[in-house]
Amino acid sequence: MSKRITVLAGDGIGPEVMDEAIKVLDAVSAKFNLSYELDHQLVGGAAYDATGTPLPEATVKSCEQSAGILFGSVGGPKWETLPPDDQPERGALLPLRKHFGLFANLRPGVCLPALTHASPVKQELIADGFDVLCVRELTGGIYFGQPKKRGTNEEGTEFAFDTMIYTKPEIERILRIAFTAAMGRDKRVCSVDKANVLTTSVLWRETAIEIAKEFPEVELSHLYVDNAAMQLIRRPGEFDVLVTENLFGDILSDEMAMISGSLGMLPSASLGKQNDDGLYFGMYEPSGGSAPDIAGMGVANPIAQILSLAMLLRYTFGENDAAKAIDDAVASVIADGKRTGDIFTGATGEAKVGTAEMGAAIIAAL
Amino acid sequence: MSKRITVLAGDGIGPEVMDEAIKVLDAVSAKFNLSYELDHQLVGGAAYDATGTPLPEATVKSCEQSAGILFGSVGGPKWETLPPDDQPERGALLPLRKHFGLFANLRPGVCLPALTHASPVKQELIADGFDVLCVRELTGGIYFGQPKKRGTNEEGTEFAFDTMIYTKPEIERILRIAFTAAMGRDKRVCSVDKANVLTTSVLWRETAIEIAKEFPEVELSHLYVDNAAMQLIRRPGEFDVLVTENLFGDILSDEMAMISGSLGMLPSASLGKQNDDGLYFGMYEPSGGSAPDIAGMGVANPIAQILSLAMLLRYTFGENDAAKAIDDAVASVIADGKRTGDIFTGATGEAKVGTAEMGAAIIAAL
Ligand SMILES: CC(C)[C@H](C(=O)O)[C@@H](O)C(=O)O
Ligand SMILES: CC(C)[C@H](C(=O)O)[C@@H](O)C(=O)O
Repeated sequence: MSKRITVLAGDGIGPEVMDEAIKVLDAVSAKFNLSYELDHQLVGGAAYDATGTPLPEATVKSCEQSAGILFGSVGGPKWETLPPDDQPERGALLPLRKHFGLFANLRPGVCLPALTHASPVKQELIADGFDVLCVRELTGGIYFGQPKKRGTNEEGTEFAFDTMIYTKPEIERILRIAFTAAMGRDKRVCSVDKANVLTTSVLWRETAIEIAKEFPEVELSHLYVDNAAMQLIRRPGEFDVLVTENLFGDILSDEMAMISGSLGMLPSASLGKQNDDGLYFGMYEPSGGSAPDIAGMGVANPIAQILSLAMLLRYTFGENDAAKAIDDAVASVIADGKRTGDIFTGATGEAKVGTAEMGAAIIAAL
Repeated sequence: MSKRITVLAGDGIGPEVMDEAIKVLDAVSAKFNLSYELDHQLVGGAAYDATGTPLPEATVKSCEQSAGILFGSVGGPKWETLPPDDQPERGALLPLRKHFGLFANLRPGVCLPALTHASPVKQELIADGFDVLCVRELTGGIYFGQPKKRGTNEEGTEFAFDTMIYTKPEIERILRIAFTAAMGRDKRVCSVDKANVLTTSVLWRETAIEIAKEFPEVELSHLYVDNAAMQLIRRPGEFDVLVTENLFGDILSDEMAMISGSLGMLPSASLGKQNDDGLYFGMYEPSGGSAPDIAGMGVANPIAQILSLAMLLRYTFGENDAAKAIDDAVASVIADGKRTGDIFTGATGEAKVGTAEMGAAIIAAL
């Protein structure tokens, strides 16, 4: 198997947090005797400025020849007025997802007990922190569903429509990802839909009930999406794995990330084809955005990028020990009191550090 | 104009909170010399049990002959396993919205300064409380869009799809409602869409920009729905009027209601046809559900129902003074420390009261 990783640092804080992740990769490679070939390519606004497109052909080619993609972040005010398809987020992320069939988006929504103060939710509701895994379907539904059109009808009235469509196999495979993940966790899956209104959701719910039979140890529950948006706030700690379709997952995983209070610490994995060893082609990226307001200042939290690297090692290369070593190093640095600005409160025991210091501390802890 | 109101108490806590609202209506009618004819009809599970359908013909007829509908709440575990179209929520609410063209759903998300402790959000983020008006499009989009279908394709693969569709006039009218409401408030409208992905959202955003020109005093901003789901939690107080399409509005208005912490205090209005006096046919109902777990115990908060009555008086009958008297009476009772269980904390100055006592206190304050 290829040992190549395409590195797409992108815009905003992407390059600076990526630097730290690469240093962590070097350190963990030395420790575990691993070796990877890194291929740095352009993406997003940076790519647009250099080549006129947010996703150059050379970038796609490189990804095709790699085992996985380590992605930074894209976008910023500079490119917000471009035509939609040239915009960094839409013009790079959506085509990458579609081209590589990255159907399973895993987004941990984690609030460490030491960081509950950073959450916007009241202390008593999240006293022990929480750890929810959002599993979002990423290549189906209304994002890519056809037809999708704008027009004018016979009476001269303008209209527009989009199609939310799912095939049963699309639903089955994302549910299997969720149930499999639950087997390694607390064995509870909450499937979110709008089955009281949407036909796609009725099919989704029926399929969830069927797939649950393949995992008799896992408990399945259902929530309507409006209710889920409420319950995530009131009792985030009661969720284990949450699985849902593309658009609902977009909304709920961001809501969950905000509830966790530490957006700068949340990684994500977008998984595609699985090989015979059970390893995935995947794209790994921080859940937060490119944070253009603090870009280049050396204050961004590199943890989301570093934990994204850990997910890459785990899901794409099966290097579970190396991945766990990174996770543990991050946890110990947090326990030690090191804080970038986004999670710093000034409480006793906390020390404010910059991007590079945080990276160095994690490497030291490795 | 008809002075008739169809009263649909429904299920769960519906009947008991409706009782209090009717008493408030009597009191306010006496005070302001108003007179209405009330027609009580069946709806929801109660209607299903009595007639085999959650929305009997007689109920629809009565509503057709009324100026507006005062609605309690519907649903409960007893009816959850019925076929979708027989279920109280879907089988009654959706047909009522469609039949009466109730396209504009106004859902205040209010957290009074005295009740910030009841919000799941940290005190410092909502110190002064907040007052957001969610305006949700209610008869368009993916709820009613055709085609909507389940099937099996040539290769034998099952699929299902729904259609999210909007005409420009549908978008214009809901935006005008939002901008008009903003004129009587803080003159800020935040339009929520997913214009980086959905064609309907592109049309929505363009239309919002056009309609904004009719209201030069109102400031228009845009948020993507995923970002809105985050910002509502972190800075609810910075929103004035939030306007969005049906499905996004379903999710965000419920999220907002949870953030406010006082679901039992939030009314809603679903407005349809407007007459020459600018008054609406409308249906008015609490934002919370039927709360079957506490039904019949006399502990439910009747305020949402009572404030729904105030909205009815305002939007359907133009009785702004009577409506304001009710709003003020509720505020003064809360200021006085009266609390039903849902908003009671035991702080000094609070007195725990039941449904009927709360109703009586509001009438006394009138
Ligand atoms: C940029 C946008 C198209 C994208 C999405 O909606 O999927 C983003 O919000 C995300 O969640 O990765
Ligand atoms: C019961 C359901 C169909 C309804 C909706 O989704 O509109 C409800 O959630 C609401 O918001 O009134």
